[in-house]
Amino acid sequence: MAGVTIGRRQWAIAEGYIPGTSTGPAPAMISHETVSILNGTDDVAEVEVIVYFTDREPVTYRLTVDARRTRHVRFNDLADPEPIPRDTDFASVIRSNVPIVVQHTRLDSRQPANALLTTIAFPGDE
Amino acid sequence: MAGVTIGRRQWAIAEGYIPGTSTGPAPAMISHETVSILNGTDDVAEVEVIVYFTDREPVTYRLTVDARRTRHVRFNDLADPEPIPRDTDFASVIRSNVPIVVQHTRLDSRQPANALLTTIAFPGDE
Amino acid sequence: MAGVTIGRRQWAIAEGYIPGTSTGPAPAMISHETVSILNGTDDVAEVEVIVYFTDREPVTYRLTVDARRTRHVRFNDLADPEPIPRDTDFASVIRSNVPIVVQHTRLDSRQPANALLTTIAFPGDE
Amino acid sequence: MAGVTIGRRQWAIAEGYIPGTSTGPAPAMISHETVSILNGTDDVAEVEVIVYFTDREPVTYRLTVDARRTRHVRFNDLADPEPIPRDTDFASVIRSNVPIVVQHTRLDSRQPANALLTTIAFPGDE
Repeated sequence: MAGVTIGRRQWAIAEGYIPGTSTGPAPAMISHETVSILNGTDDVAEVEVIVYFTDREPVTYRLTVDARRTRHVRFNDLADPEPIPRDTDFASVIRSNVPIVVQHTRLDSRQPANALLTTIAFPGDE
Repeated sequence: MAGVTIGRRQWAIAEGYIPGTSTGPAPAMISHETVSILNGTDDVAEVEVIVYFTDREPVTYRLTVDARRTRHVRFNDLADPEPIPRDTDFASVIRSNVPIVVQHTRLDSRQPANALLTTIAFPGDE
Repeated sequence: MAGVTIGRRQWAIAEGYIPGTSTGPAPAMISHETVSILNGTDDVAEVEVIVYFTDREPVTYRLTVDARRTRHVRFNDLADPEPIPRDTDFASVIRSNVPIVVQHTRLDSRQPANALLTTIAFPGDE
Repeated sequence: MAGVTIGRRQWAIAEGYIPGTSTGPAPAMISHETVSILNGTDDVAEVEVIVYFTDREPVTYRLTVDARRTRHVRFNDLADPEPIPRDTDFASVIRSNVPIVVQHTRLDSRQPANALLTTIAFPGDE
C-alpha cells in the first residue's frame, strides 16, 4: 500500500527517567523508557534524538526508521556517543527529515508489579 | 439529541504492544491494547485501522462506529485479514469518513496487579 | 489575582469505564473515572457532560465550575438524570460557555495495588 | 550545540493530587506529583506555576529553568509562599517568558506497588 503522511518533523518529551532497578524477567520486565516512532511515509526517516539534562549540555543520538515502519527505541539502549545514566532526570527533542509520530512510554518494575505510563509527545509547529 | 461534530478524520498511535500473558479473570483482566473511538456525528463512521510493524508491510482492518456511539476495540480481537501477534511492537493509523475522536489504552496484567496507560491519539491535520 | 483565559469550550474523551470492583479503603481507593476541569477565567463555567454508549443514545449531565477554581468530578457520582453503569464502555464530550481545560483520569483498584491512567482530553476547535 | 525553540509560553494541567501516604524507600518511592519542564532555548526560562483549588483563590510559585536544561519539579517540594496540602484536588497553569514544554507525572505508592500516570500538558495558544 502507498505511504501515509501524518505527523510532524519536531517533537518534545519533557519527562524522562530510567528506573535503576527492576522486578521480573529480562528483557520484557526490565524497567525501561521508550520513544516509539511511526514513519508512515514512503521515505526512510533520519531521526535525531537530543537528550537534555538538569546540569549539563544536551547529547545527540541518531537513528533511522524505515518507510512504512515503526520503531520502539528504549532509551536504555542508546549507547553512542554515551549511555544515558539511570535514576537521572532527562528530557528529549526528536527531529526528523520527514513527518513522524512520536509517543513516550515507561515501564517501571522497581516494585513487584509493574507500572506503566504513556503520552503522545508534544508536536512542534514545523 | 442532535449529533456533535468533534474530532478529526485521521489519527495515529505510535505505541502498540499486546502483552502475551495475563493474571486474573477473563475477559476483563486479560492483557489488552484498545483503540477507543467516539463518533459524535449523525452518520455512521466507516473506519480503517492500518497497523504498522517493525519489519513488514502494514495491514489494514475495517470497522464501523454507529452515529452518536462509542466503540472500544481491542487490538486482541482484530482477526480479518489476520490476528496481531502478541509480544510484538506495532503502531497504527486510524482513518474515518467523518470526524471521530481516538484514544489509546493498554491494560497489562502480566504481573499480579494490573498496570494501565492511556493517551489521546495524535490528531492529523485533516 | 486576575483570571487566566486558557483552554477551549469543547472537549472529548473517547475512553470511559468505571471498574465495578475495588480493593482498599473508600473513598480514596474506590475504582473511579474522573473528569478534571480547570476554569481559570473570572466567570462561572456552565458545563455540559454528554456521555456516549455503545448501544443507546447519549445522556447529558450539567454542572458548574466557579471562577478561578478546579473541580475533579467522578463519573461514579453523576446521578441526574441517571447513574452511569459500572463495567460498561462509554465516552464523553464536555462543553462549556467559557474556555476550560479538561483532563481524564482513572484509578483502577480491582487488583490489590491500584493502577492509574491520565490524558489531557481532545480539545475541539472552538 | 545551539538551542532549540519548541513549545509554548502558557500551559495547563487540570488534574493535580499529592497522595498523602507512600510505600517504599524515600525519596524515589514517595508518592509525588511532578511538573517536568524542558527549556530548549538559549535563554533562562522564568516560570510561574499558578496552582488552583476547589474552594479558595489560586497561589503562585516562581522558579527558573536554565538554557538547554530540563527541571522535574515535585509539587510536594513547592514551599514559598506555602506548601500544597496532601490529599487535596488542585490544577495548575504554567507560564514562561520563553517557549517551554510541560509534562505532568504522578507516582502513587499508597498501595504496595507503585502506579504511574503522565500526559503532556495542554498547550495554550500563545
